[in-house]
Amino acid sequence: MQALVLERKGELSLRDVTITETLGPSDVRIAIHTVGVCGSDVHYYTHGAIGPFVVKAPMVLGHEASGTVIEVGEAVRHLTVGDRVCMEPGIPDLNSRAVREGMYNVDPAVRFWATPPVDGVLRPEVVHPAAFTYRLPDNVSFAEAAMVEPFAVGMQAAVKARIKPGDVAAVIGSGTIGIMIALAALAGGCSRVYVSDFSAGKLAIAGGYDGIVPVDLNTTTLADTIERDTRSWGADIVFEASGSARAFPQLTDVVRPGGAIVLVGLPVDDVQINVNAAIGKEIRIETVFRYANVFDRALALIASGKVDLKPLISATFPFARSIEAFERAAQGLPSDVKLQITL
Amino acid sequence: MQALVLERKGELSLRDVTITETLGPSDVRIAIHTVGVCGSDVHYYTHGAIGPFVVKAPMVLGHEASGTVIEVGEAVRHLTVGDRVCMEPGIPDLNSRAVREGMYNVDPAVRFWATPPVDGVLRPEVVHPAAFTYRLPDNVSFAEAAMVEPFAVGMQAAVKARIKPGDVAAVIGSGTIGIMIALAALAGGCSRVYVSDFSAGKLAIAGGYDGIVPVDLNTTTLADTIERDTRSWGADIVFEASGSARAFPQLTDVVRPGGAIVLVGLPVDDVQINVNAAIGKEIRIETVFRYANVFDRALALIASGKVDLKPLISATFPFARSIEAFERAAQGLPSDVKLQITL
Amino acid sequence: MQALVLERKGELSLRDVTITETLGPSDVRIAIHTVGVCGSDVHYYTHGAIGPFVVKAPMVLGHEASGTVIEVGEAVRHLTVGDRVCMEPGIPDLNSRAVREGMYNVDPAVRFWATPPVDGVLRPEVVHPAAFTYRLPDNVSFAEAAMVEPFAVGMQAAVKARIKPGDVAAVIGSGTIGIMIALAALAGGCSRVYVSDFSAGKLAIAGGYDGIVPVDLNTTTLADTIERDTRSWGADIVFEASGSARAFPQLTDVVRPGGAIVLVGLPVDDVQINVNAAIGKEIRIETVFRYANVFDRALALIASGKVDLKPLISATFPFARSIEAFERAAQGLPSDVKLQITL
Amino acid sequence: MQALVLERKGELSLRDVTITETLGPSDVRIAIHTVGVCGSDVHYYTHGAIGPFVVKAPMVLGHEASGTVIEVGEAVRHLTVGDRVCMEPGIPDLNSRAVREGMYNVDPAVRFWATPPVDGVLRPEVVHPAAFTYRLPDNVSFAEAAMVEPFAVGMQAAVKARIKPGDVAAVIGSGTIGIMIALAALAGGCSRVYVSDFSAGKLAIAGGYDGIVPVDLNTTTLADTIERDTRSWGADIVFEASGSARAFPQLTDVVRPGGAIVLVGLPVDDVQINVNAAIGKEIRIETVFRYANVFDRALALIASGKVDLKPLISATFPFARSIEAFERAAQGLPSDVKLQITL
Repeated sequence: MQALVLERKGELSLRDVTITETLGPSDVRIAIHTVGVCGSDVHYYTHGAIGPFVVKAPMVLGHEASGTVIEVGEAVRHLTVGDRVCMEPGIPDLNSRAVREGMYNVDPAVRFWATPPVDGVLRPEVVHPAAFTYRLPDNVSFAEAAMVEPFAVGMQAAVKARIKPGDVAAVIGSGTIGIMIALAALAGGCSRVYVSDFSAGKLAIAGGYDGIVPVDLNTTTLADTIERDTRSWGADIVFEASGSARAFPQLTDVVRPGGAIVLVGLPVDDVQINVNAAIGKEIRIETVFRYANVFDRALALIASGKVDLKPLISATFPFARSIEAFERAAQGLPSDVKLQITL
Repeated sequence: MQALVLERKGELSLRDVTITETLGPSDVRIAIHTVGVCGSDVHYYTHGAIGPFVVKAPMVLGHEASGTVIEVGEAVRHLTVGDRVCMEPGIPDLNSRAVREGMYNVDPAVRFWATPPVDGVLRPEVVHPAAFTYRLPDNVSFAEAAMVEPFAVGMQAAVKARIKPGDVAAVIGSGTIGIMIALAALAGGCSRVYVSDFSAGKLAIAGGYDGIVPVDLNTTTLADTIERDTRSWGADIVFEASGSARAFPQLTDVVRPGGAIVLVGLPVDDVQINVNAAIGKEIRIETVFRYANVFDRALALIASGKVDLKPLISATFPFARSIEAFERAAQGLPSDVKLQITL
Repeated sequence: MQALVLERKGELSLRDVTITETLGPSDVRIAIHTVGVCGSDVHYYTHGAIGPFVVKAPMVLGHEASGTVIEVGEAVRHLTVGDRVCMEPGIPDLNSRAVREGMYNVDPAVRFWATPPVDGVLRPEVVHPAAFTYRLPDNVSFAEAAMVEPFAVGMQAAVKARIKPGDVAAVIGSGTIGIMIALAALAGGCSRVYVSDFSAGKLAIAGGYDGIVPVDLNTTTLADTIERDTRSWGADIVFEASGSARAFPQLTDVVRPGGAIVLVGLPVDDVQINVNAAIGKEIRIETVFRYANVFDRALALIASGKVDLKPLISATFPFARSIEAFERAAQGLPSDVKLQITL
Repeated sequence: MQALVLERKGELSLRDVTITETLGPSDVRIAIHTVGVCGSDVHYYTHGAIGPFVVKAPMVLGHEASGTVIEVGEAVRHLTVGDRVCMEPGIPDLNSRAVREGMYNVDPAVRFWATPPVDGVLRPEVVHPAAFTYRLPDNVSFAEAAMVEPFAVGMQAAVKARIKPGDVAAVIGSGTIGIMIALAALAGGCSRVYVSDFSAGKLAIAGGYDGIVPVDLNTTTLADTIERDTRSWGADIVFEASGSARAFPQLTDVVRPGGAIVLVGLPVDDVQINVNAAIGKEIRIETVFRYANVFDRALALIASGKVDLKPLISATFPFARSIEAFERAAQGLPSDVKLQITL
């Protein structure tokens, strides 16, 4: 079958590949319909590696996917041929301790699509465990369903935050993940969410949503904004989604006494957290690694209309123009949130 | 000053009363603007008692109130004269163990407005602790603010449920509190909320909100509806807001394995919970007694537009016609949710 | 191989059986060493059924077991031949939603040893998933290891209670499970645990442990005892381990405002919980169905010496005298806690 | 009355002071019996300041105290003259938001004994809110009761950790607070606690307790020890009690996937936490600022015998030799844990 292959750093090709996948009793075979282009896909393309994960052999890209079930294993009960679905790209070892304890995302043995050496799904079909394949509600499109994976990171952040209804939150960074977190936090109970960034383009997209208050870091600071609007109490929850070394020392200025900081963005450089300030306010700090048990919750929120991800799909490319999609994604236009490819 | 007095069971009068209240250093004096008529007010009027609380002497009614600060104690920092506010009607002993542990609602020494022998606030003014007096956001009206008290019960239920974003909930009973719970659960993260009742009128009001699915118990059961819509898994959370003895044995049929039941309605008769079924699904059961630390969260959700209580205000009466308001409330029209009185 | 078979209600035989078990890649084969006699084993023997589970065909009994690994599947990493182990008797469907969410005990598809129609392990060997097989610390004996299964119920109760260090707890019922709960609660952070029962024999066994305060229900009530000793505040946690219909209405008298009730005992009859009292104190009620993710924690506590289960092993029988062990267990002597059989 | 006064940095005197304290209706007057010397007392003596708190005027030292009630305010119900008690040294504003929410320790308005400009209690008597005064069980001595304050920090750490029964914990730093945390963690449910330090003397004291495993950092690392003993999984909880900048980057090596790090020690220098590693394991980080709602729990654990603080009292000085006690404390002998002064 034809696939979008990252041959090596900087070189993509759309070519035939041979991937042999046998359908186990608990698996389904899925015809891929839509795949979103993720920042990590682009980073492998432009840099050839992400931290310890290095592209050493040609690898199919793509892990934000939706499609249609075309074959089901004999033990599968909750899916049938023809079901429209989306998929979790990480496959843990079901016999692991992490799985048993309900945190399959931190299983050290997880195999994750388009993370070397595991192939992704920018290809016509894939075999996947039914347990990590989710049926779409009728009113959720393939395009929206391919957004569930990045939105799931926002959902995981919202779950970890343990939002209480009415909480005020702040999100540092108005990139794709920052917006996903803000939307999940709003749907998950926050009364309003401040999103800060230096990019006017990114802030305009975030600020288009009811309940999101954009904070332009060119003209003010997040801490000052929150102090003014909360009468010096602070935000109940602060989500860090920028990975910027400058952001970390200020987190404790934004959060209220007894509040929570949720770290999502991976910093490139060493970062400093003001531990004395954190202790003085007795802050809880949570961290987010991918997600677990949120895909069906994400689908429920999209289906109910509480979360609208459609405005975040900036452009859609046919499979034949996949490389063009990656080249555009690599440019990082401020007005682009998510590019998708349809097969 | 003039007040609405419950002289004894069945007899109301609007007459002068003498209430001497001194302003302590941490108190404020409030000119009352709007007071909602609560089911408990009506019950004292029609029955003269609620459980162990018996009306033995004339008592001013009313505890769902908003108004304007007209005097502040010397130690008060967060309020000033002219502030528009709403108030928590329960005043705990600040030196109690319950307060120290953050659950002031269960302090056995709580004094609660319009609960014998404590006077309520259907009168021109009241002195109240500033700590339990909440400043209104500019876009929240006095009428909405007088709805915060009943909505706070829904908020407490939503907090106790520990909703995860996207949860599916069911509420048994579409009375005032049932609707309040449904709205708080939706604002607090649920993707959709089923509300069941036998009254078509009540269901029509609840069903007017996006995200609420009315379930008419004349034609189906809640358990069947949830089983169908959740593919036999069950609701993540079931709120009991009817107090009906018939409802309790069925709660465990509606909830999913590992889910939560939240008991809010006070049953009049002995009730049975299916303990074997609860254990078999390892259900958590929470209970709700009034509320603590939710008034400001409620105001934040109303101000943000995530919760709209205005459609629930069925009629507004001037203070001079207070008795008429109570007589109408005592009729319990299916189309009435909340009646309010303005001073 | 030879096994202890429940032929039908009231009839046991020690005879040859043919059980064909193939070793999957994630399985281990275990030579059974010690098996405890559980109340449920005895109940199947004496009554032929427990609730919906009816013995319709001959079934091997026994599910509290320890032994030695004699063969390992090719994918097993954490166990090797010769490892001394104990086993969880319930095997969930690893592809289920309940497993994914970390609550494999409530997976409706769980297959549980010695629950019809699944055979138990009173036989020389068994094939079991390595994921539910736990290596013993060197200082934990086979006899102690065969106690882990019933102790795990106490551990699950202690986990569900969310004990805070220093909590005061009460356990209703001084049977095997009641004592297990008390020991887990003490090891899990309680400062002291009251255990109530009518049986002097049972109370003497419980009262032999430091930190357990026996309460003789022939001479006082649990509520009176707790009220006196907590200056009328109540116990932080009340565990119900009797299943007695008389116990349930009193639970809310024993617990403090904002405290927790944990239901473990399965009532035979319909039971009533005082919902009004529970709401008035805003009580949380947890339920316990078997256990999940506690076997290794149990082993750690036994190995450290914080929990000593040896005094609870009342007698040990060789495999050849298994039927005698069951006959004695069926008598229910007050001085017997646990009878074990060694193979 | 006579008091131990820190006149200025480096200068102590035992001299008459005039402290006028009026007994409010919710207060008690306490004759001080025993006061422990805290590291912060010593630091004010040797450095004249701790962070933003600078000694600008003479101040009475001492905040770890026990004594006897000698007068009670008219509204006090739970204490009477003659009661033996210990006291929380921090007095929050009962009308504050932090108090209402159950986290009075982070009320910005807290007044704390022996923190400039508030006087401490190395003096014959003090007036204190009854709400923060705790009656001693009969079998708890004044000396033990004066240890409750530092032990409360360990208790708060144990509460914040949300220990599950059987957890394995590690504590970095075997100073007074490190040992207090280890004891609270053991009493609070841990099966065993590793305590690491470079000081053989400190490790010998910690290692004298059952359940504490001392780790000598001169010969190994904590991460290596934990990796070996947990089969590469990691500790469930890691408590940081050293404040050492070297310790922080390693915290994430010691903790298991999904585990918790609890920060107690205040670092003097800027510190770095490995955020990438924390995210990769999805670690929760809690912080501890003093304590709230743990004094009675601490007393319950001491009274029950589960926690024995007596071995940590290294020497006791009469009030007249208070200055000598401080001089010895300032030497920081490895064999000294706690010095106490009796009045």
